[in-house]
Amino acid sequence: MTDTPSEETGPAGPAGPSRRSLLGWGGAGLALGAAAAGGAVAVARAGDDAEPTAAGSGAAVAFHGTHQAGIATPVQDRLHFAAFDVKTTDRAAFVQLLKDWTGAARLMTAGQAVGEGAYGGLAEAPPDDTGEALGLKPSRLTLTIGFGPSLFEKFDLADRRPEALAELPKFAGDNLDRNRSGGDLCVQACADDPQVAVHAIRNLARIGFGKVVIRWSQLGFGKTSSTTPDAQTPRNLMGFKDGTRNIAGTETDRLKKFVWVEEQDVDPNSAWMTGGSYLVARRIRMNIETWDRTSLQEQEDIFGRDKGEGAPVGRAKERDEPFLKAMKPDAHVRLAHPDTNAGATLLRRGYSFTDGTDGLGRLEAGLFFLAYQRDVRKGFVPVQRSLAADSLNEYIQHVGSAVFAIPPGVVDKDDWWGRSLFSTPSKNPKGPVTPKNSANSKEA
Amino acid sequence: MTDTPSEETGPAGPAGPSRRSLLGWGGAGLALGAAAAGGAVAVARAGDDAEPTAAGSGAAVAFHGTHQAGIATPVQDRLHFAAFDVKTTDRAAFVQLLKDWTGAARLMTAGQAVGEGAYGGLAEAPPDDTGEALGLKPSRLTLTIGFGPSLFEKFDLADRRPEALAELPKFAGDNLDRNRSGGDLCVQACADDPQVAVHAIRNLARIGFGKVVIRWSQLGFGKTSSTTPDAQTPRNLMGFKDGTRNIAGTETDRLKKFVWVEEQDVDPNSAWMTGGSYLVARRIRMNIETWDRTSLQEQEDIFGRDKGEGAPVGRAKERDEPFLKAMKPDAHVRLAHPDTNAGATLLRRGYSFTDGTDGLGRLEAGLFFLAYQRDVRKGFVPVQRSLAADSLNEYIQHVGSAVFAIPPGVVDKDDWWGRSLFSTPSKNPKGPVTPKNSANSKEA
Repeated sequence: MTDTPSEETGPAGPAGPSRRSLLGWGGAGLALGAAAAGGAVAVARAGDDAEPTAAGSGAAVAFHGTHQAGIATPVQDRLHFAAFDVKTTDRAAFVQLLKDWTGAARLMTAGQAVGEGAYGGLAEAPPDDTGEALGLKPSRLTLTIGFGPSLFEKFDLADRRPEALAELPKFAGDNLDRNRSGGDLCVQACADDPQVAVHAIRNLARIGFGKVVIRWSQLGFGKTSSTTPDAQTPRNLMGFKDGTRNIAGTETDRLKKFVWVEEQDVDPNSAWMTGGSYLVARRIRMNIETWDRTSLQEQEDIFGRDKGEGAPVGRAKERDEPFLKAMKPDAHVRLAHPDTNAGATLLRRGYSFTDGTDGLGRLEAGLFFLAYQRDVRKGFVPVQRSLAADSLNEYIQHVGSAVFAIPPGVVDKDDWWGRSLFSTPSKNPKGPVTPKNSANSKEA
Repeated sequence: MTDTPSEETGPAGPAGPSRRSLLGWGGAGLALGAAAAGGAVAVARAGDDAEPTAAGSGAAVAFHGTHQAGIATPVQDRLHFAAFDVKTTDRAAFVQLLKDWTGAARLMTAGQAVGEGAYGGLAEAPPDDTGEALGLKPSRLTLTIGFGPSLFEKFDLADRRPEALAELPKFAGDNLDRNRSGGDLCVQACADDPQVAVHAIRNLARIGFGKVVIRWSQLGFGKTSSTTPDAQTPRNLMGFKDGTRNIAGTETDRLKKFVWVEEQDVDPNSAWMTGGSYLVARRIRMNIETWDRTSLQEQEDIFGRDKGEGAPVGRAKERDEPFLKAMKPDAHVRLAHPDTNAGATLLRRGYSFTDGTDGLGRLEAGLFFLAYQRDVRKGFVPVQRSLAADSLNEYIQHVGSAVFAIPPGVVDKDDWWGRSLFSTPSKNPKGPVTPKNSANSKEA
C-alpha cells in the first residue's frame, strides 16, 4: 500500500494535496495556484533571497519571486534541461503558451499535477497530466525559462534584445554539434528526484505541442542529498572537487554584483530584463579513458589543485586562497580565476552527465556546464577566452553551446514568464528588423 | 570545508575509512577487504536473505553471500548497466580479470576506492581509482555479474552452458538494435547515488582495459528514496504504477520457486550455476508523445488498471486480486499475469530511462526492463510470447535485448566471480566445440 494520504483515496475519492490538483492551467483556476491549493505543500523558501532548504527534504521551492528560482536556489540533485525551437509565428499564440506554461510550472513546482490531473478529467480525453509524478513530493523542483537570441527575431523583437545577450564567438577547440546547440527557448528543470524533473519537461513539451518542439535536451546528475554529506564539494567525473569558490545562493552581495541584471545595466529597450540574468550552457565531453591513463602528478598540475583535499598548489586546504603564481601557467584554476580575467565571476550550476557509451566503447560522459552572469560579454566570454591556453583542453571538448536571456521572476499569480518582454508591443511590429549588432545575430 | 572525517585530512594525512582504501585489488591486500578495512562502513545486510535496509541511508550492502547481491536486494534509486565484449582469448588472463574485478567490487561496494586509491599511489603513475566517488557513502551499491551465451564459446565452455540460458526467440514486434543487444558479460551497478554507480562501471571498464570493452550501457532511474514515500509503488513513464505484484526480496518462498537455480535444476555440467539466476534485459522504448494523446479510458483499458489508485479493473485497491475476465482480452495485466502463463513469474528490477531527445524532438525514453528468473524458458519466454497480443504494443517497442547467466554469489574473501565455472578445466580444453543446441548459439 502507500503511506501518503493523497494516494489512499481511489480516483473517486477526495482530491489530496499531492500532484493531483484539479485546477486548470492558463485559466481562472490559476487564482487558486500554489498559494491557496497547496495546502499540504511546504513552501520552503523564496526563489531569491531566503535561506537554503535542507536538501532532499522533498519540500517545494517557491515559484514566485523577484528573480526566477533555479539560479540562487541551492543546487538540486538532478537536471533535465531542454532547448526548444518555436514553430508558431503567431505572437498571440506564443504569448498564450507562455501563460499556460507559467500556470503549469506554478502547479508542478508546488508538487501538483497540471490541468485536471492524470485521471481527473473526461475518460474520453487524454489526461491533462502524464501522471508519472503522482504521489511524488515536490522534490524542490524549479523551472527556469530563458529566451535565445533567435527568439527576438522570430517575433520582431530584435530591438528589445539586450546587448548583454551576446552571441558567443568561436572559441579555440570548439567542436560544436549544431543539434546540441542553440534554441529559441530553454527550460531548466532541477529537482532532487529525476522523475519529477523529467515529468516537468515532458508536460511542458506536451502543452506546447504544435507551437514548440524540443531541439535538444540533456539529463544531468550531481551530488545526491541522501547519500552525500551536505558540506562536501561535489567531484566532477575527472575526480576533482568542482565549485569550491562558486557563488552561494546566500551571498547577496556577489549575486548582485555578478548575477542579477540591475537597472543601471539596461536601456529602455532592455528594461524588461531588470532582475533577470544570462545563461551560458555548454556540453563538455570528457575524454574519460585518456584522463584515466594520465599520471596523478599531471592531473594535479593540470587542475592546479591536489586530488584528495582539493587544496590549491602549495596550500593545505581546499578553501585556502590560491597562490596563482605557484601553479603552472596553463593550470585550469589559474586561468579560470577572476584575478586572471579582470574579475569576471560566474555562478556555475553545472551537472555531470553520462549518456551511455559511444560507438567505440568509451563512456559518453562529461560536464553539462551551466553558468549564470550579469552580462555574457563580461562573464563567460573573457573566462573562456582565457581558457584557450588551458592544459585541460587535451582531455575535454566543448560539443554543445547555447546562450539565453533569463527574464526576471514571476512575482504573483497574475504574472507570467516573459510578461515584461511581451506585454508591450514591439517598436517595430511590422516585418523584420535589423538587430542592433548584426554580427551577433547569427545562431551559434 | 567538509563534514566527513575522511576528507579533513590532506593527501599526506592518515587514510580515512571512506573510499580511500590503500589496499590492492587482486592481491594479498584483499584479505583486508570489506570485512576488516571497512571500519566506519555500516554493512547493513547480507546479499540474499536479510531484512531490507532503509533506503537512502547511504549504507553498504554486503558483497559476500550465497547469491549475488542486486537481485533480492531492495531496489536502489539508480542504475548503470554495462554489457561487455571480451577481447582476450587467453583464458588465464580472463580469469585474472574476474579476480581483479571481484576485488574491486568488494572494495567499492563497501564504499572504498580501488587499488591505491585516487591519490595514494605514485605521482608518476595514473591513480588506481578515478576518484569521483571519493567521500561519497557506499550508497547501497551492488555489482552483479552475468555471463552471456557467447562467452561460453569464447573459452571452449560450450558444454558448460546451461540449457536454461536459452537464446531468446524473435518476438512479435521486436525491433532490436544490434548495438544495444547481446554481450559476453554484463555488470549491473545499482546504487542510491548515480555517481557511485557510474564510478563503479567506469573503474571496472578501466581495470579491464585491453581485455574487455563496453559493448553498450544504459543508465536508469527509479524512485528516489529521499523524495518518494517508501511504500509507494513507483510509476513508469506512462504514469501507471508498475511492480505491484513483484517478488519482494523478503519472500523467501517465491525467490526459491521462481528466481534461484536449485540443485535439482542442474546436471553435472551446469552444477556451477547452483545458487545463481538468469537475467533478461530488454530496452523498451515508449512512444511517449503518442501515449500522451491517448484517452484516459483507453490507457486504463490497455493496462487493465485505473491510473490513480492502480486497482485492477473492477477492483478498489491497487493490491486487490485482479479479476482477469473483467479486463479486455488484450489488457497488459491480463496477458502478463501468471494465470495466463502457466504460473510463469519474474522478479522484475527495471528502471525508467530518458536519454535526451531523438532527432524528431521526441523524448528518447522508456523502460529498461530487467527480469531475474530460474529458467529463461519457463520465465520470460512464455510471458513475452503471451504479450504478443498486448494492446500496449502500439505504444512501445523492444529495441535492445540480452540474456545472461548470473553465477552464484561470492561467499568469502578467497572466492571470486565465476570461480565455479572457471576453476575446473573445460571438458574440451582444445579447440572449439559444437554447442549442445546449435540453433540457440547465435547472438541475439
